[in-house]
Amino acid sequence: MTVDLRDPIRLALARVVEEGRKLEGGDVASYIPELARADPDALGVAIASVRGTIHETGDSDTEFTIQSVSKPFVLALALEQAGLTEVTRHVGLEPSGEPFNAISLDEATGRPFNPMINAGAIVTSSLIDGDSAAEKFAVIRRGLEAFAGRQLDVDDAVFESELESGDRNRALAYLARSAGTLASSVDVATEAYFRQCALLVSARDIAVMAATLAAGGRNPVTGERVVSEAVARWTTAVMSSCGMYDASGAWMVRVGLPAKSGVGGGVAALLPDQFGIGTFSPPLDAQGNSARGVAMLEALSNEYGLHLLMHRGEPLSPISTLDTDRDPIVARLRGELVFSGAEEVLTRLDTLARDGVAIEMDLEGVTRLGPAARLLFRDALKEASASGHDLTVNDPDGLLDEAN
Amino acid sequence: MTVDLRDPIRLALARVVEEGRKLEGGDVASYIPELARADPDALGVAIASVRGTIHETGDSDTEFTIQSVSKPFVLALALEQAGLTEVTRHVGLEPSGEPFNAISLDEATGRPFNPMINAGAIVTSSLIDGDSAAEKFAVIRRGLEAFAGRQLDVDDAVFESELESGDRNRALAYLARSAGTLASSVDVATEAYFRQCALLVSARDIAVMAATLAAGGRNPVTGERVVSEAVARWTTAVMSSCGMYDASGAWMVRVGLPAKSGVGGGVAALLPDQFGIGTFSPPLDAQGNSARGVAMLEALSNEYGLHLLMHRGEPLSPISTLDTDRDPIVARLRGELVFSGAEEVLTRLDTLARDGVAIEMDLEGVTRLGPAARLLFRDALKEASASGHDLTVNDPDGLLDEAN
Amino acid sequence: MTVDLRDPIRLALARVVEEGRKLEGGDVASYIPELARADPDALGVAIASVRGTIHETGDSDTEFTIQSVSKPFVLALALEQAGLTEVTRHVGLEPSGEPFNAISLDEATGRPFNPMINAGAIVTSSLIDGDSAAEKFAVIRRGLEAFAGRQLDVDDAVFESELESGDRNRALAYLARSAGTLASSVDVATEAYFRQCALLVSARDIAVMAATLAAGGRNPVTGERVVSEAVARWTTAVMSSCGMYDASGAWMVRVGLPAKSGVGGGVAALLPDQFGIGTFSPPLDAQGNSARGVAMLEALSNEYGLHLLMHRGEPLSPISTLDTDRDPIVARLRGELVFSGAEEVLTRLDTLARDGVAIEMDLEGVTRLGPAARLLFRDALKEASASGHDLTVNDPDGLLDEAN
Amino acid sequence: MTVDLRDPIRLALARVVEEGRKLEGGDVASYIPELARADPDALGVAIASVRGTIHETGDSDTEFTIQSVSKPFVLALALEQAGLTEVTRHVGLEPSGEPFNAISLDEATGRPFNPMINAGAIVTSSLIDGDSAAEKFAVIRRGLEAFAGRQLDVDDAVFESELESGDRNRALAYLARSAGTLASSVDVATEAYFRQCALLVSARDIAVMAATLAAGGRNPVTGERVVSEAVARWTTAVMSSCGMYDASGAWMVRVGLPAKSGVGGGVAALLPDQFGIGTFSPPLDAQGNSARGVAMLEALSNEYGLHLLMHRGEPLSPISTLDTDRDPIVARLRGELVFSGAEEVLTRLDTLARDGVAIEMDLEGVTRLGPAARLLFRDALKEASASGHDLTVNDPDGLLDEAN
Repeated sequence: MTVDLRDPIRLALARVVEEGRKLEGGDVASYIPELARADPDALGVAIASVRGTIHETGDSDTEFTIQSVSKPFVLALALEQAGLTEVTRHVGLEPSGEPFNAISLDEATGRPFNPMINAGAIVTSSLIDGDSAAEKFAVIRRGLEAFAGRQLDVDDAVFESELESGDRNRALAYLARSAGTLASSVDVATEAYFRQCALLVSARDIAVMAATLAAGGRNPVTGERVVSEAVARWTTAVMSSCGMYDASGAWMVRVGLPAKSGVGGGVAALLPDQFGIGTFSPPLDAQGNSARGVAMLEALSNEYGLHLLMHRGEPLSPISTLDTDRDPIVARLRGELVFSGAEEVLTRLDTLARDGVAIEMDLEGVTRLGPAARLLFRDALKEASASGHDLTVNDPDGLLDEAN
Repeated sequence: MTVDLRDPIRLALARVVEEGRKLEGGDVASYIPELARADPDALGVAIASVRGTIHETGDSDTEFTIQSVSKPFVLALALEQAGLTEVTRHVGLEPSGEPFNAISLDEATGRPFNPMINAGAIVTSSLIDGDSAAEKFAVIRRGLEAFAGRQLDVDDAVFESELESGDRNRALAYLARSAGTLASSVDVATEAYFRQCALLVSARDIAVMAATLAAGGRNPVTGERVVSEAVARWTTAVMSSCGMYDASGAWMVRVGLPAKSGVGGGVAALLPDQFGIGTFSPPLDAQGNSARGVAMLEALSNEYGLHLLMHRGEPLSPISTLDTDRDPIVARLRGELVFSGAEEVLTRLDTLARDGVAIEMDLEGVTRLGPAARLLFRDALKEASASGHDLTVNDPDGLLDEAN
Repeated sequence: MTVDLRDPIRLALARVVEEGRKLEGGDVASYIPELARADPDALGVAIASVRGTIHETGDSDTEFTIQSVSKPFVLALALEQAGLTEVTRHVGLEPSGEPFNAISLDEATGRPFNPMINAGAIVTSSLIDGDSAAEKFAVIRRGLEAFAGRQLDVDDAVFESELESGDRNRALAYLARSAGTLASSVDVATEAYFRQCALLVSARDIAVMAATLAAGGRNPVTGERVVSEAVARWTTAVMSSCGMYDASGAWMVRVGLPAKSGVGGGVAALLPDQFGIGTFSPPLDAQGNSARGVAMLEALSNEYGLHLLMHRGEPLSPISTLDTDRDPIVARLRGELVFSGAEEVLTRLDTLARDGVAIEMDLEGVTRLGPAARLLFRDALKEASASGHDLTVNDPDGLLDEAN
Repeated sequence: MTVDLRDPIRLALARVVEEGRKLEGGDVASYIPELARADPDALGVAIASVRGTIHETGDSDTEFTIQSVSKPFVLALALEQAGLTEVTRHVGLEPSGEPFNAISLDEATGRPFNPMINAGAIVTSSLIDGDSAAEKFAVIRRGLEAFAGRQLDVDDAVFESELESGDRNRALAYLARSAGTLASSVDVATEAYFRQCALLVSARDIAVMAATLAAGGRNPVTGERVVSEAVARWTTAVMSSCGMYDASGAWMVRVGLPAKSGVGGGVAALLPDQFGIGTFSPPLDAQGNSARGVAMLEALSNEYGLHLLMHRGEPLSPISTLDTDRDPIVARLRGELVFSGAEEVLTRLDTLARDGVAIEMDLEGVTRLGPAARLLFRDALKEASASGHDLTVNDPDGLLDEAN
C-alpha cells in the first residue's frame, strides 16, 4: 500500500462533485436540438494551478461546446489586440442587471452594457483582427487554443443550428451596428461569434484557460504568454462583475470566484494567482448557468475558503525575527510582502532607525515582493541613504531589482 | 538630520494627493444648502493598515457628513443582526446599471436591486434592531462608531435639510413598503436613514472603518470585533459589485479596490487583508462620486499595484529548501500558504513519498496558512498515517491546529 | 294591450345585458376586503341621452365605489379650475403602455404620463382648489355631484381601507412631489384622492356623468353647466387615448367609445353629442377593467354601430331640393351641416353663381350648423356681397348668428 | 368681376398656410443625404372631401417621399388581406409612449407595440400578400395607388439610401423575427418597407388617401373601394391613438384629427365622414413630425372647430314639425338620425302612442339614418304592429330598408 499525497486534492474535488450530484433539477438548453441531446448526468470538474498542475475528476475529458464561456477569453484577445480604450469605445464594462440575451444597449452611447452578454460579445468579436468572418475566427481559434494549450475543433452541427436560429443575436448586432459600435459587418461579427460558441472544449480545457488568466495571462501548462498581465486583470475584473449574468452580485457575495458560464454546461472560474477551475454539467438553472456547476463552485469556495475576499486570518508579522545582538541588527522578513507588509516593516523599524541603529533587512525568507512593497523599500533605502542612516538589505533573490 | 522610515508611505500619499489636485472640475453637491457650502478645495486622504497603523495627509481631519459612505457599514450591521438570508429577502445583491437614486425595484420581488442605492439602504436601515427611528439610529450610530473607533456627531442642519428635501427617498420607501420589503414604517426607516447620512466623519475615520472590513470585521485600531468575518466579506463583495453606482464595473477594471462614495465628498476603499483608505474632496463627477477621490484612488492603485486582481508575479516556490541529507528529509515551507501553495507542496513531495522516503514539513517560515491549505495538509497527514507513510510536521506556531 | 315605443331602447339594453351575462370569469377586486365582498353577479347598465332621457336595466341603481371612474371627472374639474396649460405643466397627456399602478413618471419632466393612471390622478387631485384635503375633497364632491345630478355619499369603510393599504399610491405621490409636479403636500393629495375613489355611485349616475361630457359639459338632466365645452372635449380626448389603461388602443379599434373603468366594477363610456353609458359588474379582467362591462360596451358598439369612427354611410346631399323655377332659385339645405356639407353646398352652387344666377339658401331643414359651416357660409355671403352677386339666405332659426 | 363661392374654402386653407409660415424652426430630416436636400420653405396643403372635391394651395403638387405616412395605408391593406385577428397576432394596437424608432417590442408577446412605429410597420409589411419583396411591394404600391387615385413612382436614390442606412430597422425586424412575429424573412420585409417609404406623393395625394379612409374605404375621387368600412374604421382608430408617435395623446386633446406624419415632411389627417387633409413642409419638430404641418392642422382644427370630439352645440329637435291636425298625426323627422335622435323621437312619440293616437313618421327630411336608428325604428314598427298600434312611416328614400 503506497501513499498518494495528491489524494487530498482529489478528495476535495470528489467532495464537491458529490455536492453537485445531490442537486436535482435544471434543464439542458434546448433552443437548438444539438444542445438538447446533451447527457444531463454528465459531470466533470478540473482544477489547474498557476504552476501548471492539473487535478480532475468525473467527465472532465468530455467535450461540449464552449458557448458563452468563450466570452471572457475573446474579450481578452480583443483587449490584447485593440487595447482597453478602443474596446471600451465599443462596449461598456457595467453589469446590466438583465438576462444574457437582453437588448441592453446604453441609450446614450449605443454600447452594449458589457462584453459578457451576447450583444457585447458580438461587438467584441467584431474588434478581433481580420476582415472576414473566417479570418476573425481563425484568430479567435488560435487564441482560445493558446489559452487551452491544445487544438480545438468546431462542432459544425451546433454552429449550423446557431446560425439558423440566431435572429435575436443578429438583431443585437444590427442595433450595435446602427449605433456605430460594431466594428465589422453584421454577418462577419455574428458568424465569428456563432463559430467561437461552437468550439469543443472539456472541463479540463476551461480549467487551463481560466488558470491562464489566474497566472496573469501566461498558460501555466505550456508556458506560452497568451495575453498581458493587464489584460488578464481587466478580463478577470469583468468576469467578477458581469460573469454570472443577472446573478453576478450574489455570486460575488456567496462564492467569490470570478467566473463565466455557458449554455453548453461549462463554467470557468478562477482565483487570481492560485488556480483556474472548469466544471461541466449540462442542466441549467433559471439564470442560464449550469446548476451543478454553480453548486460545486459554491461548495468548493465555502469548504476550502476560496472566496476572493476571504479574510485570511491574522497574519504573522512580516518580521520573523529581529536579531538585536548583531550590528547592524538584522530584521528577517518572511512571506509575501505587499503594500501592507512593507508598510508594517517600515513602521516597526522606524523607532529603531530614529535611534540611529544600523539595520539590515534580510529578504531571504520573502516568497514574493509586490510592486508596492518594492517601491516602498526602494524609497526607504534612498531616504536612509540621503539622510546618512545605515539601512542595508540582504536580497539574494534580487527581489528589489527593477526587473522583478 | 534623522531618518523617518515612514516617509515612503507619506510620499505615496503625497503623490496621490498631488495627482488629485491636478484634477479640475466637478461640482459640490447642492441639493441642500448645507452641502453646497463645502469647501471645494478641501482634500484629504488617510490609509489605515489591518495592523492599525494610520498614515494621513492633507485635510484628513476635516469633518463632513458621511452620506452614502454609511451604506456598506449599515449593511454590515444589518447582516450581523439579521443574517444574510433575511437581508436578501428584503434587498437584492445585484448592480442595477442605474444611478444612485434610481427607483430600481425588482418588479418580480419588490426588492431594491442592492443595498448601495438609496432604496436599498433605506430597506437596510429598516432591518436594523429597534422599533423607533431613535432606537434604530442609536444602534446604527453605535455600530458606525465601533467601525470608526470614536464617537461620531450628527450634523443637525444637514439632517433637517435631508428630512425636508427627502421626498424622493420617501417615495422609494413607500414603494418598498407597498412591495412588502420594508421592515418598518416609512417614517422610521427614512428618519433612521437621513440621520445616519448626517453623521460627521473625517477621511481618517472612513479609512479606519474600511480597514475594519479589510481586517475581517475587527477594528485594527481599537481591537474591537465589530462584525463577523463572513459579514465583512459579504459587505466587501457588495461594495465591489455595486459600490460606485453605475460605474462599478469600470471601477473594478481600472482601480480594483472595493469602494463606496458619498455626496459629502468622502470615499471609502479597501484592499482585503491589507488596508482601508478614506479620501475627502467635495466636488462630484457626473456619477455622483468624489471626482478627486476617484482620481486619487485610481493613481494609488496604478502606481502601487494595489488592484485586488493584480497578478503578483511569478511566486517563489513555497518550499524554500529541501534538505535531503537528513532523515527524514526536511521540506522547509515559507510564506503565505493558501490552496495553490499547499497543492504545490503536496504535488512536489508526492514523488518522494511514493519512493517511501520519510518527510518532515517544516512550517516555521510560513507566515499564514489559509483554511484550504490547512485542510489539505491535515488530510495528507491522515492519509500518510493511514497508509503507514512517515510524514511529519514541525509546526511551532500551531498553524495546523483547528482553532486557527 | 298598449304599446311602449321606448321598448326598442330597452330591448337594446336587454340585448347587451344578455351578452354580458354570457361572459364567465374575471375576479372581483380583492386588494381591500370591502371590495372583495362585492356581488360578482350584480349587473346593471344605464344610458343617458344628451337630451336627458335615461334608459336603464338590471342593477342600475346599486351603489358601488366609483374608484378610477372618478379620474376623468376630477380631471375635468382641474381643467376647469386651473386651465389646460397649468394642468399639463403637472401631468402629461400620453398613454404609457403600462398598467394602472405603473410608476410611469416621465424621466425628463417628472410628470406622470397621463391623468388616467393613479400617479396622474393624484397630481390632478392636488390641482383642485382648496388648501386642505377636506377642502379639496369638498370641491371634488360638489363637482362630481354636479356631473351626476345628485348628492353622493362616501363609503367610509372603503376609504379607511384605501388609506391603510395606499403605500404604493403614496410612493407615486412622493415621486411626483420630489419631481415638483405635485401641487400640494402628499397627504393632502392622497387623502383627497382616496376619498374621491370611495364615493358611491350607481350605473345610472355614471351614465349621467358621462352624458354630461357628451353634452359638452352641461348636465342634460339638471341643465347645470358643470364644465366648459373645451374641458369636456379635452377630457373625452384623454379618455379616448388613455381611459382603458394598457388596452386603450385596442379599445378604440374594437369599441370606439371613449371610456373609463374602475376596480369597483363601473365603466363610464360616451359617444359625444349622443349619450353617456354606465355599466356595473364587479369581476375584473386581466387589465383591471370590468369584464362584463367591457363585453356589454363592445356588444353595444358592434350591434348598434356606435363606434366613434363608424362610417355613417354615403350621406344624402345636403341640398334636398334645388328649385330652379323660382328667382332667386332656392337651394333647400337639410340636416346637420358641418365643414364638408357646407363645402359641398358652396362647391355645387358655384357653377350657378358663376353664371350670375341669383340664389337663396334655405336653412329651414338644417338641424345643426357646425362652426366651420357657419364660417364658410358667412364668408361666402360676404364674398358674394363684395362682388355684387345676389346670394341670400333664409335662416328662420338664426343659425348663422354669431352667438350660435 | 365674378364670384367664386369656393373662395371661403380657399380662404380657410390660405389662413392655415399663413399660420404655418409664421412658424420658424425645425430641421429637415438628414439621416440620409437625399432627405437633407429638401427645400425647407416648401409648404403645401390640400383638402379632399368625402364627396371627392379637392381644394389645395401652395406646393400641394410637389412630390416628396411618403415615408411613415405610408404606415396607416399599408396597415389598412394588411387588415384587408389578413384580417384584424391575424394582424393583431403579429402586432399590437397600443401606443408605446416612445419615439418612432423605439425598440418597443412587448416582452410577453414579442409583438411590436403598434403598426405606426417602424418595428410594427415592418411587421405589417411582412403580412402583405406576396412571397418576395418585389411581390409584396407590387401589392403595396397598387394599394397605395388605389388610395391616392393615381400611379406613384419610387425615389430610387432615397430607397437605396434607406437600404444602406437601415441597420436599426433591420435590427427591429430581426427582433420581431426571433420573437416569431415577422411573417416573412427579414430581407423581404425590410426591402418592401424601405421601398414603400420611398414612394413619391404630393400633399394632394395624401389628402385623397386620407379622404378614402374618411369615406369608409372608398376613394371619393375615383369611386374605387380600396378597403372595407371596418378596415377604414380600425385604421383611423390606430391613427387616433398612435399616429403622432409619443405626442399622440396631446394631439387628440389639442387637434383631434386622426393623423400620421412622415420624415419626408408630409402629414395625413382626416375627419371621418368629412374629409382628408394632406400637408407638406419638410422641417421636423423634436418628435419627428412636420413642424408646420402640425401647426397648420392645429390652426385648422381650432379655427374651424374640426376636432373629432368637438361638441356641435345643442341640436335642433329631430322632429321638425308635429302635425297634430292630421290623422294619423304626422311627425316630420329631419337631419341625420343616429342612436340618440331615434331614441328621442321614440321617447317623445311614446306619450302619444300610449294614448292610442295613430302616428306617421315622415322620413323625407332625414339626410342620413344610422344603423342604430334604423334598428330602433324597425323594432318600434314591429312592436307597434304586434300590439295593434297604428304606427306608419313615410320613407321615400327607403332609408329603413335592410340594404341601407
